[in-house]
Amino acid sequence: MFRLRAPIVLPCDPACGVLRDAVVDVDDHGRLGHVGPAADAPPSDAPVRAVPGILLPGMVNTHAHSPMTVLRGMGGDLPLMRWLQEVIWPAEALLTPSDIEVGMLLGSVEMLRNGITTSVEQYFQPDHVVRAVLATGGRLVLGPAVVDAAGWSWRKQLDEVSARIDVEGLRPHDRVEIGYGPHSAYTLSPEALTLVAEAARARDALLLIHVAESSQEDAAQRARYGSVPRLLSELGLLGGRVLAAHSVHLSDEDIRIFAEHGVAVAHCPGSNAKLASGTARLPELLAAGVAVGLGTDGPASNDDLDLWEEMRLSALLARLATMDSAALTAADVLLLATRGGAAALGRDDIGALETGRWADIVHVDTSNEAFAAGLSVPDEHLLANLVWAANARDVRDVWVAGEQVVADREPTKVDRARVQAQAGAVTTRLRG
Amino acid sequence: MFRLRAPIVLPCDPACGVLRDAVVDVDDHGRLGHVGPAADAPPSDAPVRAVPGILLPGMVNTHAHSPMTVLRGMGGDLPLMRWLQEVIWPAEALLTPSDIEVGMLLGSVEMLRNGITTSVEQYFQPDHVVRAVLATGGRLVLGPAVVDAAGWSWRKQLDEVSARIDVEGLRPHDRVEIGYGPHSAYTLSPEALTLVAEAARARDALLLIHVAESSQEDAAQRARYGSVPRLLSELGLLGGRVLAAHSVHLSDEDIRIFAEHGVAVAHCPGSNAKLASGTARLPELLAAGVAVGLGTDGPASNDDLDLWEEMRLSALLARLATMDSAALTAADVLLLATRGGAAALGRDDIGALETGRWADIVHVDTSNEAFAAGLSVPDEHLLANLVWAANARDVRDVWVAGEQVVADREPTKVDRARVQAQAGAVTTRLRG
Repeated sequence: MFRLRAPIVLPCDPACGVLRDAVVDVDDHGRLGHVGPAADAPPSDAPVRAVPGILLPGMVNTHAHSPMTVLRGMGGDLPLMRWLQEVIWPAEALLTPSDIEVGMLLGSVEMLRNGITTSVEQYFQPDHVVRAVLATGGRLVLGPAVVDAAGWSWRKQLDEVSARIDVEGLRPHDRVEIGYGPHSAYTLSPEALTLVAEAARARDALLLIHVAESSQEDAAQRARYGSVPRLLSELGLLGGRVLAAHSVHLSDEDIRIFAEHGVAVAHCPGSNAKLASGTARLPELLAAGVAVGLGTDGPASNDDLDLWEEMRLSALLARLATMDSAALTAADVLLLATRGGAAALGRDDIGALETGRWADIVHVDTSNEAFAAGLSVPDEHLLANLVWAANARDVRDVWVAGEQVVADREPTKVDRARVQAQAGAVTTRLRG
Repeated sequence: MFRLRAPIVLPCDPACGVLRDAVVDVDDHGRLGHVGPAADAPPSDAPVRAVPGILLPGMVNTHAHSPMTVLRGMGGDLPLMRWLQEVIWPAEALLTPSDIEVGMLLGSVEMLRNGITTSVEQYFQPDHVVRAVLATGGRLVLGPAVVDAAGWSWRKQLDEVSARIDVEGLRPHDRVEIGYGPHSAYTLSPEALTLVAEAARARDALLLIHVAESSQEDAAQRARYGSVPRLLSELGLLGGRVLAAHSVHLSDEDIRIFAEHGVAVAHCPGSNAKLASGTARLPELLAAGVAVGLGTDGPASNDDLDLWEEMRLSALLARLATMDSAALTAADVLLLATRGGAAALGRDDIGALETGRWADIVHVDTSNEAFAAGLSVPDEHLLANLVWAANARDVRDVWVAGEQVVADREPTKVDRARVQAQAGAVTTRLRG
């Protein structure tokens, strides 16, 4: 049990706003106790640690394939299909379970250092992904991949996930949630999708799926099914907890379908722009009441696991799309990266500094140019400095469930240089 | 005289590519000597400093109003015209010459730390701007503002610039070039623009002007003049060295006019997106042969003086506009930020690591996750890691004219904490 005291605390609870000279209490179970102004804090015998900057909730990365850190930069700037077919898929086919674990270790270290405490991963080798994230102290929502492709049996993959959940439960560890990761409507048949959805719903598990990412793919699905949201709705897939990644090419009707069924969206503006897929209609999604979180996508395509960049890009692209320079504010995108991401996962135990939630906390160093104006400026000035001028490298300390996993920019539980060297060796081997 | 030796040197000379295990010689006048593979380097008695990362040319920020660091974050996320009229202009009216010097000091420190060695500044109080940049050791191209507004006499401003150049020359200091900064066709009459252009051309001075930034403003100019490029062309303003900032709303004809007259463009994608102005047609400008550099614009609107973000944003927005994921490569945008920026200013003495140019050099630390694959990966892989995964905070050391102005991320010539405190005091006073 300990207490953090900081000049600024951003609980990312819309009702709270900016707290000044505030404390964040962490209990012995890694949960948050009192969060509020120091003047109103209950007396406590717990050790108090004063931090000089800003405290905010750990960010939630709602869509990632982080083991792909070992492929980062491969293929340079090839067009999308050549990049996938000539570089990424052949390289992925060579990945061993241990390579995937090393890639996830590096991704997890990088995310924690960037202030991301929870990531939603769709990838293969679930045991290895879980082990890597737990080694670094991060928090994981994992949807083991289910795809229908040469060499893979979607039914076997599906049964393995179901068996895993039936034996270990949805939460095999405080920091790990297991869901289903059916890849997409273009890699799985309607029959397969239906069976995955039934399995997920029967277990109240989160279902992660790619929707309407590139325009080519979307056009093909529309020709076949009307639209992917309509197909998923007709198959009954949208009844449970569904998180639709990308969702770039949604019609008004598609957005209505998502809103009606409580489907959430993992918005990945950086990846979608880099691969020239387009930009999801964020203002319209939010206006329709769809829960939206931010995602980095895989580091082979984005290329850093950095939600600070995604926050800025979300706002910039929304402003360009609407030609309204107030379309998304700094506060809006900070909420998307934290509480909004948690809500998109249907989670109310992370994403905000609120009594009872997990103590996933980020300490932002405010000693650099971004905060030359100081911390006593008005709220919207402070938030503008944080979102528009600070960046991921200003994250100094990070706690997950009250455990300090980053101290002074370095991971506390693994050796970063060693992890990088291991990942580098994998890349070198793949490059052959 | 000294020699830097690094595992990777990126001269940013299109003919050179990526040099491995290479040296960069700096002579006693601050100019570059031999740049090339260590194996081919001439023998030298100069001290050799081994740097473990990547050396590249100092970046060139082709459009900035950096003294506005003291206004950064003010007005939060107000719509553009309210932000200008209610917050920025009233605050600027209160700026003293010393405030502007402090703001420029902070901006210059920040730019150097981010790897920007030259910035093009349009602002008031030229003596103070020059003094601030020289105090930090940076390099400056300054177009003192010429505007026709209440309380200002454009003619007096114009005459002051001409007198300055006539007395001190275009280059009053090795690191300082003086040009003309007529604000725009909407703040100056055709008569005023004509006289400024004549003065600039007579002195072979660079002319810096805002063109077609927001759609409202552009529409008004088009209604009045056909288009601003056409107006400028008809006024004979395009005969000399002209750098048109923003240039967001250009028609095909406008682009042809720019190409024909050798008008260069300072592309500011971050500012233009944040203020919902739009996105300049970068691929079309480049295809037409227009010289394009990158600009941050002022830190009150962007908000950090960071060309790494502008590199990425340039490529992302170009890819979205063309729906081509290979529209701009990592190498393309790195060139825009360096040699391209220099070319846009009509300068062949900066922007590349090339014998005879100024020794403006950036050392990028490669010890982080972005470079886990190591430095011996193929060229395009290395450039992808540098541009897409590294960032401004990875800049470790910076030299301008061979003088080390940043060492281990801190300025060598001024005290950063003191500069930040001075700037913070200005902001606090303005906030009143």
